[in-house]
Amino acid sequence: MNLEDILVDTLSITSEKAKTILKSRSTKKIVHKDLLILVFKREMLGYPEGTSIIHDTSTSVSRVIPGYPPIPRLLILEKIRDIFKEEVVVEEKINGYNVRVAAIGEKIVSLTRGGNICPYTHYKIFKLYGEKLRKLFQDYPDLILCGEAIGMDNPYVRYEGYRNVSFDYIVFDMMQERKFLSIKKRDSIATEYGLKIPKSYGFHKPEEFRRIIDLSVQLEEKGIEGFVIKSMDNEVRVKYTMTSTNIGDIREGMRFFFEEGRTYIFPRVLREIFRQYELMKNGYNFGEEVYVKLGKALLEPPIETVAKTEKGEISDEDFTLVLDDLRILDEFLQYMEKQKIPIHVIGIYPTSGGEYRISCLKIRRTPLRIKSILDTGISPED
Amino acid sequence: MNLEDILVDTLSITSEKAKTILKSRSTKKIVHKDLLILVFKREMLGYPEGTSIIHDTSTSVSRVIPGYPPIPRLLILEKIRDIFKEEVVVEEKINGYNVRVAAIGEKIVSLTRGGNICPYTHYKIFKLYGEKLRKLFQDYPDLILCGEAIGMDNPYVRYEGYRNVSFDYIVFDMMQERKFLSIKKRDSIATEYGLKIPKSYGFHKPEEFRRIIDLSVQLEEKGIEGFVIKSMDNEVRVKYTMTSTNIGDIREGMRFFFEEGRTYIFPRVLREIFRQYELMKNGYNFGEEVYVKLGKALLEPPIETVAKTEKGEISDEDFTLVLDDLRILDEFLQYMEKQKIPIHVIGIYPTSGGEYRISCLKIRRTPLRIKSILDTGISPED
Repeated sequence: MNLEDILVDTLSITSEKAKTILKSRSTKKIVHKDLLILVFKREMLGYPEGTSIIHDTSTSVSRVIPGYPPIPRLLILEKIRDIFKEEVVVEEKINGYNVRVAAIGEKIVSLTRGGNICPYTHYKIFKLYGEKLRKLFQDYPDLILCGEAIGMDNPYVRYEGYRNVSFDYIVFDMMQERKFLSIKKRDSIATEYGLKIPKSYGFHKPEEFRRIIDLSVQLEEKGIEGFVIKSMDNEVRVKYTMTSTNIGDIREGMRFFFEEGRTYIFPRVLREIFRQYELMKNGYNFGEEVYVKLGKALLEPPIETVAKTEKGEISDEDFTLVLDDLRILDEFLQYMEKQKIPIHVIGIYPTSGGEYRISCLKIRRTPLRIKSILDTGISPED
Repeated sequence: MNLEDILVDTLSITSEKAKTILKSRSTKKIVHKDLLILVFKREMLGYPEGTSIIHDTSTSVSRVIPGYPPIPRLLILEKIRDIFKEEVVVEEKINGYNVRVAAIGEKIVSLTRGGNICPYTHYKIFKLYGEKLRKLFQDYPDLILCGEAIGMDNPYVRYEGYRNVSFDYIVFDMMQERKFLSIKKRDSIATEYGLKIPKSYGFHKPEEFRRIIDLSVQLEEKGIEGFVIKSMDNEVRVKYTMTSTNIGDIREGMRFFFEEGRTYIFPRVLREIFRQYELMKNGYNFGEEVYVKLGKALLEPPIETVAKTEKGEISDEDFTLVLDDLRILDEFLQYMEKQKIPIHVIGIYPTSGGEYRISCLKIRRTPLRIKSILDTGISPED
């Protein structure tokens, strides 16, 4: 069966339309073992970015896995009064990377936000939850798990919130087709099959928004970085992040300021403008604390990167993977090469638990641009 | 004479080439009284952005006024050691708006950086320097003055450095064709014809860069915002800005954070990264002072704009013009309308000196975008 026919079948569209989609620059074709995957690189036909149409060539089973739709970002907590009609649940917003898990016949796949299959992430989730997932998808073959991969040992994100975790997977939503399960249904399935869900900060009435403003301050003091507010049927969802995330993201991005840094700054400052505005209106006054944190986030990490670069020390991004099977490392390295993200393996160290800690470097453009400034003294932009 | 022929004549190009240029989206045609002007909106044929080809239809005189070429921005003062071979002059970098003044036959024009003729700016410069300019251009008809319009009373920039000045014009460079006059030649012409030039902070040997680093700290304490370092023949020039400008620009731009704010941040943080890095290497330690300033610049002005917008107070940009002839105000308003920049005149107040203080508002998009956030609570970007 060719991709055109697969599209016609799974998306219920005409051959004409399928041909146009296949020719579009907004789709990409991935081959992963027996799987042939077409990924939407942007919203198309009403499907969100990251939607994958998957065909298993060994079984001829095909399926559409919709992308995880963006959750609108709330800037003013008071507004939940207008956005929600009934009781809401407040859940921890987990700062990891988004991974969907679903079945294609007997096979189970895990897809990154962009619709790719990262061999490392896939292997780690299976190592932890393989048996549970198999049982789950036997009973609910059409379910799509939407979760966050967290912890320190991954190629993508490292974040204060989960310093003591090596790797885990937390399911924050479940979809059937493009519809989210209700909170209760999600919870009961997660409990039944032994999957983790985000911490809940209770149920609140929308008119009690003031309690949620206070909650955001209390949770922030405990190191919680954000939350998602959902209606009980999970049809309305908004996300909100605390100062620690808004500024922490900038701090993290500014280490490689010519790459993430530039684009990280404005949207996060925007979040913080409205957060501080609302907090002040509600009697919170953090004095100069926030200004200092923001100023430091913008200057300290880049100055350190410049100093490292000038001294000739490596200032690329380091991360660690933990694996018990080095073949997965090979698969991962090939995968990153296909994504045109150059990775260097620095060292492989056996652990007492029979695993390997693999020390890696992601090669960055920022140090090269710093070198050029250090050589000429001249700014690449006015 | 049509524009095509004028281009062929003044630029010494073929009709073919002239036709292409006239059709290009990178040029625009302006009619200002008797003058027909073609402006290059980007670098073309080796001429910088803002280059104007001007034809006086009443006299049939034509002329090319090259754009003011961008001065490379220095991020590391130590590098003047490598950039310059001989003695350099350090001059105040003036934070106003760039205006070139030149003659087209008997007429004298003043052109903004983008190659336009702003009626207000033109009138003010003539009011102050009309007689002097007439004499100058009688003797040097091919000279182009490159200067900065400064002070509080103009439609474009208000800046701490010139709080006590209503309007003035300071000539920092003179060009003949695309070649800059030497510093000595510029100074002697300015003195002879009574024009102002920037303050000089003396002559320095490039190997004494350490003195310039110290100078930058001393001048900053005195409220000087930046300097331009030039070779004596003015063939090599670099500009450098102090912390007060880097952060002050951000502070100013963040008042209208959806417009200037977004684009102002990164390049200015970049300047400050290298400034602080170099200062620290040279034993300066400003503690948390810079962090607080930067954090405040990013959050205080926007929070104030949000508060004003929520209260229903006007949060558009206010500025004042000072004129003794209200016909110029009409010309100016028509000019801004053509640029699609909506201006509201709030009030016209006669002064004791026989002039009018005209209070204006520049309509901004930021308050509209804030209103939409205040209504929905939802961020326009993730």
